[in-house]
Amino acid sequence: MNVNRRLQIGIIGSTDCADEIIGIAERTGALVAAKGAILINGGRTGVMEAASRGAKAAGGLTVGIIPGSSKEESNPYTDVVIVTDMGHARNAIIARSADSIIAIAGGLGTLSEMALALKMGKPVVTLASPWKIRGSVEADSPEAAVQLAFGSCGDE
Amino acid sequence: MNVNRRLQIGIIGSTDCADEIIGIAERTGALVAAKGAILINGGRTGVMEAASRGAKAAGGLTVGIIPGSSKEESNPYTDVVIVTDMGHARNAIIARSADSIIAIAGGLGTLSEMALALKMGKPVVTLASPWKIRGSVEADSPEAAVQLAFGSCGDE
Amino acid sequence: MNVNRRLQIGIIGSTDCADEIIGIAERTGALVAAKGAILINGGRTGVMEAASRGAKAAGGLTVGIIPGSSKEESNPYTDVVIVTDMGHARNAIIARSADSIIAIAGGLGTLSEMALALKMGKPVVTLASPWKIRGSVEADSPEAAVQLAFGSCGDE
Amino acid sequence: MNVNRRLQIGIIGSTDCADEIIGIAERTGALVAAKGAILINGGRTGVMEAASRGAKAAGGLTVGIIPGSSKEESNPYTDVVIVTDMGHARNAIIARSADSIIAIAGGLGTLSEMALALKMGKPVVTLASPWKIRGSVEADSPEAAVQLAFGSCGDE
Repeated sequence: MNVNRRLQIGIIGSTDCADEIIGIAERTGALVAAKGAILINGGRTGVMEAASRGAKAAGGLTVGIIPGSSKEESNPYTDVVIVTDMGHARNAIIARSADSIIAIAGGLGTLSEMALALKMGKPVVTLASPWKIRGSVEADSPEAAVQLAFGSCGDE
Repeated sequence: MNVNRRLQIGIIGSTDCADEIIGIAERTGALVAAKGAILINGGRTGVMEAASRGAKAAGGLTVGIIPGSSKEESNPYTDVVIVTDMGHARNAIIARSADSIIAIAGGLGTLSEMALALKMGKPVVTLASPWKIRGSVEADSPEAAVQLAFGSCGDE
Repeated sequence: MNVNRRLQIGIIGSTDCADEIIGIAERTGALVAAKGAILINGGRTGVMEAASRGAKAAGGLTVGIIPGSSKEESNPYTDVVIVTDMGHARNAIIARSADSIIAIAGGLGTLSEMALALKMGKPVVTLASPWKIRGSVEADSPEAAVQLAFGSCGDE
Repeated sequence: MNVNRRLQIGIIGSTDCADEIIGIAERTGALVAAKGAILINGGRTGVMEAASRGAKAAGGLTVGIIPGSSKEESNPYTDVVIVTDMGHARNAIIARSADSIIAIAGGLGTLSEMALALKMGKPVVTLASPWKIRGSVEADSPEAAVQLAFGSCGDE
């Protein structure tokens, strides 16, 4: 299909984060939006909220794919709320819907999603990550991460 | 949460439809967009494509929650593609994500989704529908359907 | 694959039922088990619990595909508990996993599942049902329902 | 609920494996069955088929939660087939349904599921695993793995 569709970039990470990580997530979200992509994430707090706040400040469009059963469970910077009522199984939908994934810091949920995205053949870029998996690419700044994420998509 | 979030209206129906139904779907999609709501549907052909084409012509935002595993399976009038790879189980996500549902014509898949939405307590409006279920409200025009769908949401 | 696999028959219906319906469900579950099939249902109360109780009394194997997130949410007559944490979306898994479906009485959830099973091409037999959908077959006793359900599977 | 329900132990791993791994999986499945637990896995080839073959030889009950849309996609040693049609998202159902998980060897899919199970608070034991995650416990034999998996469940 020769549709000129916008890229969909996923930013994943924990609900609970240090201030430094929040700043990185906000900056990364802003850069994704500035480059014209749609931001996809889990719609909750922490890295997700920060990335969406950054994207909204940069004029972007944000999509939250939430685990619970009510729109109200998403953060206020989410434009489109996808209410899955599927708990952790919603992670597979985030990975499937994203053209590439940027994982910022993160715990076991983030690790699970990184592995799933790589298994699906999606490019995975990490920032401040405790996890190293064969196939993921480490970036040392939001700028580098976004460039890598967009570059990977361009290869498709 | 005192977020001034946009309404999310679902338009459901079959992939294969008569010309008259396509016209009704396109008009309904345009009216939903003109009133400022986000259009949510299954992202495929028939009623889904027509409603999204109408919404895009009216300057709206369209979201397709698709059953397959690739963005490419959505119709070209879909702005945001949610790739579930979940087959029919994705119908539950459409029903959960919509503030109210407009069902246009439709077969067994549409009936299943109408029943699910009513079970979840979501308002369901029908247009040209072969199905009558206690709790759904019949409209005789796209204008009436959209008014009913927005009115129902306003009651929440 | 020339596996001599046992049939998997789904019995669906509401969590809350009149005594007469409970009796019908228990009898139907017993007959399914007596004929050697595995009983699949939603694992909760009402028709589901009664059918599983009947199946266990007849020496059968019962599988509950539950909407919640803990094994403890299933009724005590469930041998195998599939914990989906997917709410209503688990209905699609019941329909997919069953070779044929017997719907006993039931409300909107049951209607939704009947429609989904028919859409998937699965035989649907009803007992004491308020719902008539083109394609489903009405039975007037548990014996007739089970004979129809097994006969339909034999046609595959 | 004071139900004396059988334990449900998940064995996870790849579809494609070396002979040595197949032998380990078969032995582990047999031990799980011999201790009276129900074996839960993804119902496909490789580690899954070997574990189920072992469990059946030991007189056990096996459950395959498969990603595809047809019972026929499961291996022949699967007694109960749960047909999810949900692709990788079915991994979350395996992790939720198991009381504890034994991961044998495995690639990215296995890593994703190990992380998800740990995130859900389920005990995870590894055998011949390339992955070390904080919280999982390494075993050096099928006997040790099964003892650890059952011991962990007993703590609940």
